[in-house]
Amino acid sequence: MTNVEKPSLEVCLSPALLHLYDTNDAVVVIIDIFRATSTITAALHNGARCVIPVASVAECITIGESLPGSITAGERDGKIAPGLQYGNSPLEYPAGFIKDKTLVLTTTNGTRLLHMVEGASSIVIGSFLNLGALCAYLLGQKKRVLLGCASWKDKFNLEDTLFAGAVATALQHDFEVKDDSARAAKHLYQCAQGNHLIEFLKDSSHYKRLSKYGLEHEMEYCVTPDLHPVVPYLKGREIVVY
Amino acid sequence: MTNVEKPSLEVCLSPALLHLYDTNDAVVVIIDIFRATSTITAALHNGARCVIPVASVAECITIGESLPGSITAGERDGKIAPGLQYGNSPLEYPAGFIKDKTLVLTTTNGTRLLHMVEGASSIVIGSFLNLGALCAYLLGQKKRVLLGCASWKDKFNLEDTLFAGAVATALQHDFEVKDDSARAAKHLYQCAQGNHLIEFLKDSSHYKRLSKYGLEHEMEYCVTPDLHPVVPYLKGREIVVY
Repeated sequence: MTNVEKPSLEVCLSPALLHLYDTNDAVVVIIDIFRATSTITAALHNGARCVIPVASVAECITIGESLPGSITAGERDGKIAPGLQYGNSPLEYPAGFIKDKTLVLTTTNGTRLLHMVEGASSIVIGSFLNLGALCAYLLGQKKRVLLGCASWKDKFNLEDTLFAGAVATALQHDFEVKDDSARAAKHLYQCAQGNHLIEFLKDSSHYKRLSKYGLEHEMEYCVTPDLHPVVPYLKGREIVVY
Repeated sequence: MTNVEKPSLEVCLSPALLHLYDTNDAVVVIIDIFRATSTITAALHNGARCVIPVASVAECITIGESLPGSITAGERDGKIAPGLQYGNSPLEYPAGFIKDKTLVLTTTNGTRLLHMVEGASSIVIGSFLNLGALCAYLLGQKKRVLLGCASWKDKFNLEDTLFAGAVATALQHDFEVKDDSARAAKHLYQCAQGNHLIEFLKDSSHYKRLSKYGLEHEMEYCVTPDLHPVVPYLKGREIVVY
């Protein structure tokens, strides 16, 4: 694209900053690497009929009861939440288990951000597991892009920002990288590429927190690119494959 | 400091995230590199009696009128604001001009953040111009530190974050670098050191905005370390030298 106005690409580092961005008619990418958006991507690529993201455990149970054959899942403090059946791990949903089932998933940060976005052209799910597929989708849409980091209770986190940096790097020639957040994300991604991403992330709040629960292997899985090349998007209350 | 619990060091990337941090009894550093905190540091090192930071042009005029011999200063959109006498540049206040005078300064982002902080042990002013002096002060206080980026209308900016990264890097052995914001700031500072800071910042929103007003030389001045080795702090409504 030369001599053509490029669509802009911005990065919102925390849901608490979302009001600073215009989401109208933009493609908004929800990013919650550890682990909601990784789990959603894996489950859908493995054949889940859809994922229904909900904010609370109670809502998860209610919706699960109303949908026979659905699976309720979610964690609090690294353990399956009381009343639910499964956890929030991309490795828990292989094709042999999840195919054609509905996954009702409660997560805190990712779900909250997803429900905050208004007026978007589309709301899609981003993770390293679908990095390439997501970038191809964004290129095809030719619309403004906002990469939204779910963060951790509104606090900036490294892993979501690194992923935003990976997308901004991949799309930098076709989009106008518009704000300093996107520039910083690109620089951080460049820093992290020198060693492996997971090595870079070992010195992060979330890695330290989740490794206390023995989840190192899962986090390594979550930062592996392109294992699940689908683009999940929000359609009504359901997340389905594009 | 071995086997002794180190005080924590955190970085708040935007005033819109300040509520996530506990400022009680912490040392809070206000950072507004382009250019409020650079100007305040330079004016005080050059002998200003004090700086009074105010939010609005009207307040600046009122206070200026009540203090004979004071100087009113502030810019809007890169020009001296109507009704005020001088601008927001560290180069405008050499000793021969500012010595023993009171500078009533209106800025938007820096002043707002400064007035938002509650319960702090002390509120001090940070800029590259006083980097070394500030770090020595923080080491001496042995208290929790919050580095507060004034940002630009609540949006993350590169130059304030880079400075936070410079401080976090200098203090990393004596403080516990606690959150991902501080880790990211350190990484960004490391990226920027490869070339000169100003080269790194040429691809930033603020640099692009201010260079339209021909302020490149000033911005280069603002990222030069240790030209004005004083530690300004807030005492009542005045900023004075520690």
